[in-house]
Amino acid sequence: MNGAVCVVTGGLGFIGSNLVHHLVGQGATVRIIDALIPDHGGSLHNVDGLAATVAVADIGSAEVGDVLVGADFVFNLAGQVSHIASMHDPEADLQRNTMSHSRFLETVRRVSPGARVVHTSTRQVYGRPMRLPVDETHPANPVDVNGVAKLAGEQLHSVYASAYGLRTTSLRLTNVYGPRQRLDSDELGFLPVFIRAALQGEVIRLFGDGLQRRDCLFVDDVVEAMLAACAEHAVGHVYNVGHTEDHSLLEIAELLCGLAGLGGHVVVTPWPEEHGRVDIGSFRSDSSRIANEVGWRPTTMLADGLARTLTFYREHPWFLSPR
Amino acid sequence: MNGAVCVVTGGLGFIGSNLVHHLVGQGATVRIIDALIPDHGGSLHNVDGLAATVAVADIGSAEVGDVLVGADFVFNLAGQVSHIASMHDPEADLQRNTMSHSRFLETVRRVSPGARVVHTSTRQVYGRPMRLPVDETHPANPVDVNGVAKLAGEQLHSVYASAYGLRTTSLRLTNVYGPRQRLDSDELGFLPVFIRAALQGEVIRLFGDGLQRRDCLFVDDVVEAMLAACAEHAVGHVYNVGHTEDHSLLEIAELLCGLAGLGGHVVVTPWPEEHGRVDIGSFRSDSSRIANEVGWRPTTMLADGLARTLTFYREHPWFLSPR
Repeated sequence: MNGAVCVVTGGLGFIGSNLVHHLVGQGATVRIIDALIPDHGGSLHNVDGLAATVAVADIGSAEVGDVLVGADFVFNLAGQVSHIASMHDPEADLQRNTMSHSRFLETVRRVSPGARVVHTSTRQVYGRPMRLPVDETHPANPVDVNGVAKLAGEQLHSVYASAYGLRTTSLRLTNVYGPRQRLDSDELGFLPVFIRAALQGEVIRLFGDGLQRRDCLFVDDVVEAMLAACAEHAVGHVYNVGHTEDHSLLEIAELLCGLAGLGGHVVVTPWPEEHGRVDIGSFRSDSSRIANEVGWRPTTMLADGLARTLTFYREHPWFLSPR
Repeated sequence: MNGAVCVVTGGLGFIGSNLVHHLVGQGATVRIIDALIPDHGGSLHNVDGLAATVAVADIGSAEVGDVLVGADFVFNLAGQVSHIASMHDPEADLQRNTMSHSRFLETVRRVSPGARVVHTSTRQVYGRPMRLPVDETHPANPVDVNGVAKLAGEQLHSVYASAYGLRTTSLRLTNVYGPRQRLDSDELGFLPVFIRAALQGEVIRLFGDGLQRRDCLFVDDVVEAMLAACAEHAVGHVYNVGHTEDHSLLEIAELLCGLAGLGGHVVVTPWPEEHGRVDIGSFRSDSSRIANEVGWRPTTMLADGLARTLTFYREHPWFLSPR
C-alpha cells in the first residue's frame, strides 16, 4: 500500500479507523470520508495524530466525487450498524445503508471507475441460520431492517461489478471487537456491552440461556481480510469473513470478566421483547471460500484478542465516557 | 371474497387490474391505490366500468392510511418493473420498490395491523441460476438494481411478519403475460414485445441464440396464486409462483407468430450491450412449495394462454397504441 491513494468511507468509525491506522503505517495516502452521524461510532479521536485527510460528508452526496479523484483503493465501510435503531427508524437505515451506497457507486463509476473497491457487509444478511456453519450459498433472510438494507447495499456492489465492470468485493463480517469500538451504547451488539461491563467490574447481563454461539473476530484480522480482498481475482465476489473458533456468549462473558479481574460476573435473564424477536440463535461462519481463494485466515484467538482489547481501553479510558 | 374489503396497490397496472376484475366479480369491496407513474403500465382504462374506488397516490405517502382503514386484505403489487429503467435511474427504482414499501408497511402496521397482506416479488431476485429448477432456498443474487430493490421490498415484508406479527406473504412471480399488459414499451420483458410484434405481423427479434428457456404464467393463474396465498398457514412465507412447463424463447416466439397468423417471423440477433450484461441464461421456477403448502398450481398451458391473450388484444386494440 506504500504510495497508494486509499479512500476509506466510515474511516472515523471502529473498523474504518483501525484500517486507516494500518494504511497510514504502510505509507498509503489516506483520505477519509465520514458523515459523523451522531450515535454511529465515528470520532475524530479515532485518527488522532494520523496523516490522513478527513472529509465530513455523506457518501451519497455529490461532494465526495472530489475525494475519489485518483483513488487506487476505495474501502467502503460507511453505514448504520444498529439493528435496534433500524427497527425504530427503517427509513433512515435504508437511506444510509442502501440509497447512499447507490449514489456512491454512481460517483465511483463516474470519477474513479478503475479503483479497487472493498465493501463491508455483515453476516446479519443471513438471518436465522438453516444450517451451521453458514457459507455464502446459504439463503439470505435477514430478520431486521438493518440486515435488509445492508444486503441491498452489498448486492448493488455486485450489480455494479457485473453490469459496469466496477472492481468490487464485499465481505460479510461476523461480530467484530477490538480497539476504537464505541462502548457507550447498548445498541451495537453484545461485544462492546460485555467489554464495557468487564472494564467497569459490572454485571454482564446475558439474554436467553447464554448458550447461543458466535464466532468473533479481532479487528486486526478484519483489516487483514480487507487488504487480502484487494487481490485481483477477488473482484466481483462476496466472501464470509468469520472465525474458525466459536464460543457461547456465556463463555465469552466469563472470559472477559476473568481477563479484566475486576469482580464483574455474569447474570442470565430472559430476552427483552424487542430483542427476542430478532434473535437468530447460534451462528458460525464458514469462511473457507476466502481462505481458499484469497488466502486469508484469522490469526488472533479470542482470549488473546480480548486481552489486547482490554489493554487498549485501559490506556484510552475516554472510550468509556458517554460522548 | 364476497363482502371483503380488499386494497390493491398497483391496481391500475397489468396484474393488479386483472386481480381487481376478479375481486369485483367475487363481490369484494375493492379500493385501488395507484401512483399512475408515467411508463409504469397503470391506466384507468384497465378498470373501466368496474365498481372500485381509485386513490391516485404513492404507497409511501401518508394519505394511503385512509384507504387502509378496515381492510381485510391488502394485495401489494405497486412497484417499478423495468430492469432497464432501474439501471438508468437506480435511485428512482430503490425509492419505488424499497423505500415506498418500507413506509407502506409502517402505515399498514399502524392502520390495519390485522389485515392479510399478499405482496408480489419476482423471480428476478435470484439472478443467474446456479441450478435448475430454482426453489426458494436458491441464493438470491440479483443482476440489476430492480432485482436488488424488489428483494429488499420483499424482505421488509418478511421482517414485518416476524418482528411485528404482520400477516404477510410474498410471491416471487415468473414472467407473466395476459390481458391488460402494457405492449408499447420495449423495457418490460420479452413477452409484451413478442405479443405486440405477433399482433402486428412484425419480426420478433431474439437476442442470443433464442434457446434460453423460461416458464411463463398466464395472469389468471397469478390471480389464483394471490388468492390461494391468503391461506392462514401461508403467513410469513415466501413462495415461488411459476409454471411447470418451460419453453425456449424461440419456441414462444414461433408459437405466437403461428397463433397470430399475420406473417410475423423470428430473427435471431446478438445481445445489445446493456441487455447482455444482465442476461441470466435459462430459468425455470420450482413452485412445489406453494403447491404442497397452499395447493396452488398453474392451470393454463402456454398455447391456450397466448391464444386468449391475442384474442383480448384484438378486441381491445387501443393497447397497441402508444400512450
